[in-house]
Amino acid sequence: MKTISENRCFGGVQGVYSHASAACACDMTFGLFLPPQAETGKVPVLWFLAGLTCTHENAMVKAGAQAWAADHGIALVFPDTSPRGKGVADDDDFALGQGAGFYVNATEKPWAPHFRMWDYIANDLPALLFNNFALDEDAQGITGHSMGGHGALTLAMAHPGRFRSVSAFAPIANPTETDWGQVQLEAYLGPDRSTWARHDATLQMVEAGFDGPILIDQGSDDQFLNNLRPEALSQAMAARRQDGVFRMQRGYDHSYFFVSTFMPDHVAFHADALLE
Amino acid sequence: MKTISENRCFGGVQGVYSHASAACACDMTFGLFLPPQAETGKVPVLWFLAGLTCTHENAMVKAGAQAWAADHGIALVFPDTSPRGKGVADDDDFALGQGAGFYVNATEKPWAPHFRMWDYIANDLPALLFNNFALDEDAQGITGHSMGGHGALTLAMAHPGRFRSVSAFAPIANPTETDWGQVQLEAYLGPDRSTWARHDATLQMVEAGFDGPILIDQGSDDQFLNNLRPEALSQAMAARRQDGVFRMQRGYDHSYFFVSTFMPDHVAFHADALLE
Repeated sequence: MKTISENRCFGGVQGVYSHASAACACDMTFGLFLPPQAETGKVPVLWFLAGLTCTHENAMVKAGAQAWAADHGIALVFPDTSPRGKGVADDDDFALGQGAGFYVNATEKPWAPHFRMWDYIANDLPALLFNNFALDEDAQGITGHSMGGHGALTLAMAHPGRFRSVSAFAPIANPTETDWGQVQLEAYLGPDRSTWARHDATLQMVEAGFDGPILIDQGSDDQFLNNLRPEALSQAMAARRQDGVFRMQRGYDHSYFFVSTFMPDHVAFHADALLE
Repeated sequence: MKTISENRCFGGVQGVYSHASAACACDMTFGLFLPPQAETGKVPVLWFLAGLTCTHENAMVKAGAQAWAADHGIALVFPDTSPRGKGVADDDDFALGQGAGFYVNATEKPWAPHFRMWDYIANDLPALLFNNFALDEDAQGITGHSMGGHGALTLAMAHPGRFRSVSAFAPIANPTETDWGQVQLEAYLGPDRSTWARHDATLQMVEAGFDGPILIDQGSDDQFLNNLRPEALSQAMAARRQDGVFRMQRGYDHSYFFVSTFMPDHVAFHADALLE
């Protein structure tokens, strides 16, 4: 592991590190915020998975999460959204390839050798983090924005017992039915739709649900509503009697101005689950 | 005036607008955050002047100020740091020319036709703002980072009665004595140093001081301490018995992680003066 930068921030440290990822077969970069409380003991962890076109950096500098994480004594992990670098496949479409890993393990050419973001987030990066930092593996929550909200929800539902709480900002909620999803799932996983289902939060909500509380925020003026289908997830949550809250936020769009506005609520939501 | 974008943010609106500036003789872009309270009446204004290489956008997306401004019901103005565009002079040095206006009225070639950021901040942009938005001209505070801290302090001291409070994050505090300052003041104002003095916060503190409270935050691990000379300003403040606080913050550097950490304190400091 290599330290790219460490900046003091809200009494803690905002670090950026890179490491050789076995899952992605390339070097990966991530951000990690350690609150002041990590100097004296292990702290809970909140994962933030980012959206299309993002790197580890976007939420780290724009979401304002460190202020609230420091208040609650929670660490924040900001992974990248795809493998990157020379020899890693890419596409001219911003919504496919680098910056658009969609949190799946690709099985199809040319993506299969590196695009294994599911394993990276579920196995590879956790092993590194819990071996090297003062983080409490038994107190994890996960959230994300847009494509990252999709990743947070699908990973949380597929790993019962791992995450105590899950939330999402404007998640891609039903990707097997929308342009942000069908193109990518076919490219990464092939045409057999049975392999897509575990990567659709709405289908997983119908199938399994989540063994903890969920918080979803969605802006009513989001310019990508057709690609998100929040109504599908909302319906599935209510039909399952899922412990959770779905909030339609009037006038908000898809930007980080929306994310930062509701970040205090999300960090407090996870803190309730992680610090009990 | 043209609307570039408007995003709902912390219950208010984060807007970006452009307009033809008479002072700078070019189009200028600025950000304006209006808190929810602006829907029902005029609100106080806090100016944020940005540092070298920045546009109107950096602090707007990275400083986290909207959260606290919305709490207190204060608007935020994020001006650009220089004139820009075709026909506007520039330099290969990041610290001179576009992105580095230094908040002066240039008198020298090739800068004089456009580089009039002093007039832009003092006269041009205020006229536009107070004519077009629900802002209280009698309740203004000003802050800034690095070069913008320099601008905030020098503008505040030169306009007694205009700003009720001034603060700065790691300001260029004594530019007539440092590399960030001597090069630019000579380029913009010429070799006669008598014209430089009004653009040096330390010299103005010795000469005049500020007719209200001052808050300065400086990181002890700032990588640019030699170009900032906080000790000169701190000494001048104490010698004058200036109403103010100078805080050396252990372990913090020059980044927006530092700025965002202490932004809650700065907004609260200005709110005390603006809402009384």
